[in-house]
Amino acid sequence: MTQNKRTHKRVTIADVAREAGLSPTTVSHSLNGIGQVDPRTRQHVKDVAARLKYRPSVRAQRLRTGRSNAIALLSSMPAAVSTGESRLGFFTELAMGMAGKALLSGYVLMLAPPMDQCNPLALMDIDGAILLEPAPDDPIAQELDERAVPYVTVGGEPGPDNVDLQHAAAADLLLQHLLQSGARRPGLILGGSGRASQRNFHERYLATAEARGFPPVVAFAAEEIGAEAGRQAAARLLAEHPELDALCIPIDTFASGALRAIHDAGRRVPDDMLLATRHDGVRARTCQPPLTAVDLHLDAVSHVAVQRLLRMLGREGQDAPVDVPTPALVARRSTGA
Amino acid sequence: MTQNKRTHKRVTIADVAREAGLSPTTVSHSLNGIGQVDPRTRQHVKDVAARLKYRPSVRAQRLRTGRSNAIALLSSMPAAVSTGESRLGFFTELAMGMAGKALLSGYVLMLAPPMDQCNPLALMDIDGAILLEPAPDDPIAQELDERAVPYVTVGGEPGPDNVDLQHAAAADLLLQHLLQSGARRPGLILGGSGRASQRNFHERYLATAEARGFPPVVAFAAEEIGAEAGRQAAARLLAEHPELDALCIPIDTFASGALRAIHDAGRRVPDDMLLATRHDGVRARTCQPPLTAVDLHLDAVSHVAVQRLLRMLGREGQDAPVDVPTPALVARRSTGA
Repeated sequence: MTQNKRTHKRVTIADVAREAGLSPTTVSHSLNGIGQVDPRTRQHVKDVAARLKYRPSVRAQRLRTGRSNAIALLSSMPAAVSTGESRLGFFTELAMGMAGKALLSGYVLMLAPPMDQCNPLALMDIDGAILLEPAPDDPIAQELDERAVPYVTVGGEPGPDNVDLQHAAAADLLLQHLLQSGARRPGLILGGSGRASQRNFHERYLATAEARGFPPVVAFAAEEIGAEAGRQAAARLLAEHPELDALCIPIDTFASGALRAIHDAGRRVPDDMLLATRHDGVRARTCQPPLTAVDLHLDAVSHVAVQRLLRMLGREGQDAPVDVPTPALVARRSTGA
Repeated sequence: MTQNKRTHKRVTIADVAREAGLSPTTVSHSLNGIGQVDPRTRQHVKDVAARLKYRPSVRAQRLRTGRSNAIALLSSMPAAVSTGESRLGFFTELAMGMAGKALLSGYVLMLAPPMDQCNPLALMDIDGAILLEPAPDDPIAQELDERAVPYVTVGGEPGPDNVDLQHAAAADLLLQHLLQSGARRPGLILGGSGRASQRNFHERYLATAEARGFPPVVAFAAEEIGAEAGRQAAARLLAEHPELDALCIPIDTFASGALRAIHDAGRRVPDDMLLATRHDGVRARTCQPPLTAVDLHLDAVSHVAVQRLLRMLGREGQDAPVDVPTPALVARRSTGA
């Protein structure tokens, strides 16, 4: 294979023209379905091209259409929360779903894993982008604007160019479940980024505390630090509020850190403390005990986001619009299930 | 944000030239570090460009250099075995690692999840590719050759353009561990693709059977079917060879299916049957019980593969070459750990 690869020469349109006994222009017109070409000539060209295994140049097609046929999923979330140590977080699941959906519509997804030290946009020739959970004054949103790259958001501010992750519904599901599972004094640990998810969880938590008559206890942790920040925030809460009997921690990295703090404090999940997180991903499933979480239907989210972006680009697929179902609770051992 | 995005106009080189009081050519030469430009003029241009938030066009850069600065990870493995239902398999972990490594060297990774109904190469303007575990007469290898796209393989036939996944060492680790854990009659379930991993596991299993004096029992399952094929193959083996007390199943999708067959046969893992798989990924970790597996050091594999491809493209990074460490056993409950 190695030998073959090194000696292989690409079959060009000139090779097809020579073999077919026609001009390169006629061959190009025949293969691209443009101009006036006799149908028998066109078929002859196609047969010769197939026999020679001619592959049209993707780069030439891009130049002709002025499109890159590439999109990207981007996020300014710190790598510690969006992909995590194992690289298989929220971001990764969405990227895989979007890449598959995009390919079926003739688009390639460029993969830019969140990295704290590098700007992927400076390297990407893309027609559009999907921005995951933008922060207020998100630097990537600003750069997309400056580069005039069209984009949709996922889990951002409500609007026609946003795919709703239904943060408030997810928060309500988890808080009601904790209360129904026996919690009387649930606390909340949030990231400090001000993203819509964190704001909405905060709002729903405060409203629930008021409605159900428990005093709200909220801590914030630094997203860029990840699990260790979650551990420290939980340790602080447990020391200052020993009456807490449940923690709602929407960022799963923080939840895995909190598990350690609970253990270190000599308490057990779920016997002495209930614990719930948001995204039902690898981390929720592999923690010990596994964490109660919410199915956000990331497959449908990926599908809708790509569909909406392609519509924005004037390249809507033929498939019918899909809806993202309401988030669904996945009860696990961390809340006694 | 939506409003802003829609009314935003891209800042062009002409805008910078007008603002700087210079010709577009001088601006272009200043920003790209070419031609003879007075250093003070160059600094003035850079200051104006920064103030206007001018972003050079990635497409123009691509045209100038003739490179796409994009690579792809490709695989002809059926989606059922390379990514699996949760989309977080072997392929995904490698893709994330490679994307991060490539970005640091100025390359973008195009994400083409294995899909059985679609040819991503027809959509990709790439400078090079990484092909994961090619099969004999791999169709993607053939198309890369026809398109004259340089590529390296991962886990393929030994050679300078292959990153060795050390299949034989992984097989020996698992088989020795099963025997040391008390197995006297281990069986083997393989995919039928003829990939190097499957061939090497087969060879090492037969050699071990001969050396240790147990009769070899091998079944093959259809990779494109995934877990259900693994279940059926294991059910058949258990019915025909009730004396088997361990199964080595390198494809983790098959191993998860085999777990069901073992359960259905009224036997328990690890009490009545030991079970081990190859890749220490999400599936091995989330099975019940969790599966003994091998750490293949996919981070290092990703790193080496990108490094080797960039060297092939004449664009070697500045970092020192790294080695892939020897595979390491991860003993879990499925073998009594």
